[in-house]
Amino acid sequence: MATIKDIANRLGVSVSTVSKGLNGANDISEQLRQTVLDTAVEMGYTTKQMRSKTNKKICLFIENIEYETPEQFGYDIVLGFKQSAFKEQYDVTVTPVTPLFQSTEKYDNYMLRHGYVGAFLVGFALQDDWIAQLDTTTTPTTLLDNYIKKNPNVCYVGTDSFEGIDDAIEHLTSLGHKTIAFLNGSAHSMISEQRKQAFIDSMTAHNLPVKEEMMPYGYYAADCAKEYLGILLAQGATAILCGNDLIASGVIAECRARGFRVPEDISVIGFDDIPLSAKLTPPLSTIRQDRLELGRSGYYTLHSLINHTSISKTMLRPQLILRSSTATVRAI
Amino acid sequence: MATIKDIANRLGVSVSTVSKGLNGANDISEQLRQTVLDTAVEMGYTTKQMRSKTNKKICLFIENIEYETPEQFGYDIVLGFKQSAFKEQYDVTVTPVTPLFQSTEKYDNYMLRHGYVGAFLVGFALQDDWIAQLDTTTTPTTLLDNYIKKNPNVCYVGTDSFEGIDDAIEHLTSLGHKTIAFLNGSAHSMISEQRKQAFIDSMTAHNLPVKEEMMPYGYYAADCAKEYLGILLAQGATAILCGNDLIASGVIAECRARGFRVPEDISVIGFDDIPLSAKLTPPLSTIRQDRLELGRSGYYTLHSLINHTSISKTMLRPQLILRSSTATVRAI
Repeated sequence: MATIKDIANRLGVSVSTVSKGLNGANDISEQLRQTVLDTAVEMGYTTKQMRSKTNKKICLFIENIEYETPEQFGYDIVLGFKQSAFKEQYDVTVTPVTPLFQSTEKYDNYMLRHGYVGAFLVGFALQDDWIAQLDTTTTPTTLLDNYIKKNPNVCYVGTDSFEGIDDAIEHLTSLGHKTIAFLNGSAHSMISEQRKQAFIDSMTAHNLPVKEEMMPYGYYAADCAKEYLGILLAQGATAILCGNDLIASGVIAECRARGFRVPEDISVIGFDDIPLSAKLTPPLSTIRQDRLELGRSGYYTLHSLINHTSISKTMLRPQLILRSSTATVRAI
Repeated sequence: MATIKDIANRLGVSVSTVSKGLNGANDISEQLRQTVLDTAVEMGYTTKQMRSKTNKKICLFIENIEYETPEQFGYDIVLGFKQSAFKEQYDVTVTPVTPLFQSTEKYDNYMLRHGYVGAFLVGFALQDDWIAQLDTTTTPTTLLDNYIKKNPNVCYVGTDSFEGIDDAIEHLTSLGHKTIAFLNGSAHSMISEQRKQAFIDSMTAHNLPVKEEMMPYGYYAADCAKEYLGILLAQGATAILCGNDLIASGVIAECRARGFRVPEDISVIGFDDIPLSAKLTPPLSTIRQDRLELGRSGYYTLHSLINHTSISKTMLRPQLILRSSTATVRAI
């Protein structure tokens, strides 16, 4: 476990400055105090007070998403959640789960048995046991990218897919693209369904044709491109919007393998803006989700639910990041 | 202006306890500290620090909504906003505005000239000059009940009309009602349009007929019932959902004037749950909006925007409060 000295070394400040930051003293700047707290969390520091508290225990359950290193999608979500919770002395446990794990015990029972006052659920699928149980849960619960109707104990946080996808289609049409495909992530995910609807809405608003074969569900990994790219190219796609950056990286590699250049022959846009995106060849244009803020919003809404304020939904704005993977449509 | 002694008297605690609460001392309970802060705001107390600060000035602009007394719709919204802002040393100015006021100066110019770092806009209409300017504003701005597309500097907070209206229709159909009318508030309001759509969606989902004449736009005052009730009754309405509680109070009075009993002949449901609702004869069933929390969410999202976190939307859950203004449909 990190010590105060470790944090001081990382930040290049004195031990007493770190100590002041952790204890909320008034004689260091607010900005430095925040940096100390954020760094303490990132390094795994916990205060004595937190270790002894039992009534402020919350859990972050994570499924289907990698989060161990900064390169992975889930890392900043977990970090943002922990950073915000730390500032209000919550004790956060991160627990990876599987469908099997969920089948062994009911969600509310698990929460009660472990003394958790609330949880943030990240990466769950629509058919998961615990998701079905959320219709009636009495435990304060925030979900990333999943919405539960009418239960005042549950909140949804996410990024507005509609605005992000509309920005991407707007950009592609400004480059002359008309035959645009959407290689989506997995079915059985609320967010995949929402993005498909967003794609349909935006294409329709731009008077472009919408065909079922041009918006297949794949899965959230690079390999998915191998399976679906051929179908999309055969239908004349000149631009491919992807369900995440990993799929986009697969599309770029697979285009190259088939003798197509990106962006000269095919334009590609990703989703998420994970660190990989900027390092691809060509650097990937993508719809950015602010994952640190998703984590922080996850905490804030959960904290609200625990305090009996029933927030049903908090959405963040996406941002279209333009790099070098799109170009004017090729003349035929 | 209220003094520390005034606050101590109101709460029945010592001056030193109030002082500790205001200064964030650790030796009083968190709950008492919150109560001291909330009461200080309600009584108009400001700290020396707040009066001298110039870089934390924010404004709450309010139009078309009364907020001077606890009975009025806007009171708790303003209070919740000020309470939350006070805890983080923001200086809040409440400024009533009119369309004429907005035509005299551009929104961004006004904000700049007064040194405001952000604003919460409550009660504005779609055709207002300042609303049109929000498409491109660079000032952090949160709106109650209005959504601006794609501008990362603007956030929308509100109550989920869809769930609230669906709960009400669900309740009325469980009592056997099939001919249900919706006497809406003013047109030219995003929230009125949203609620009309919510009514259409819910009626359709319950396999009930949707007719344009059964969901007129009125205006957000009791008198509106005089004008529209006749049309709704003539079409056989047995239940009337209203755009707010004032309209519902007018509907109850007007039913009585025409010889109809509420709820025996006509069921009535309001919207908002202002203090008046419980005092009506019969006490009004209504879709509750938590206005204190709307104000607090207004502050939280504005604070996020000021700190460059682009929240686009935060929605609260409504709650159907059942009192005595609905009953089983009368046998014909």
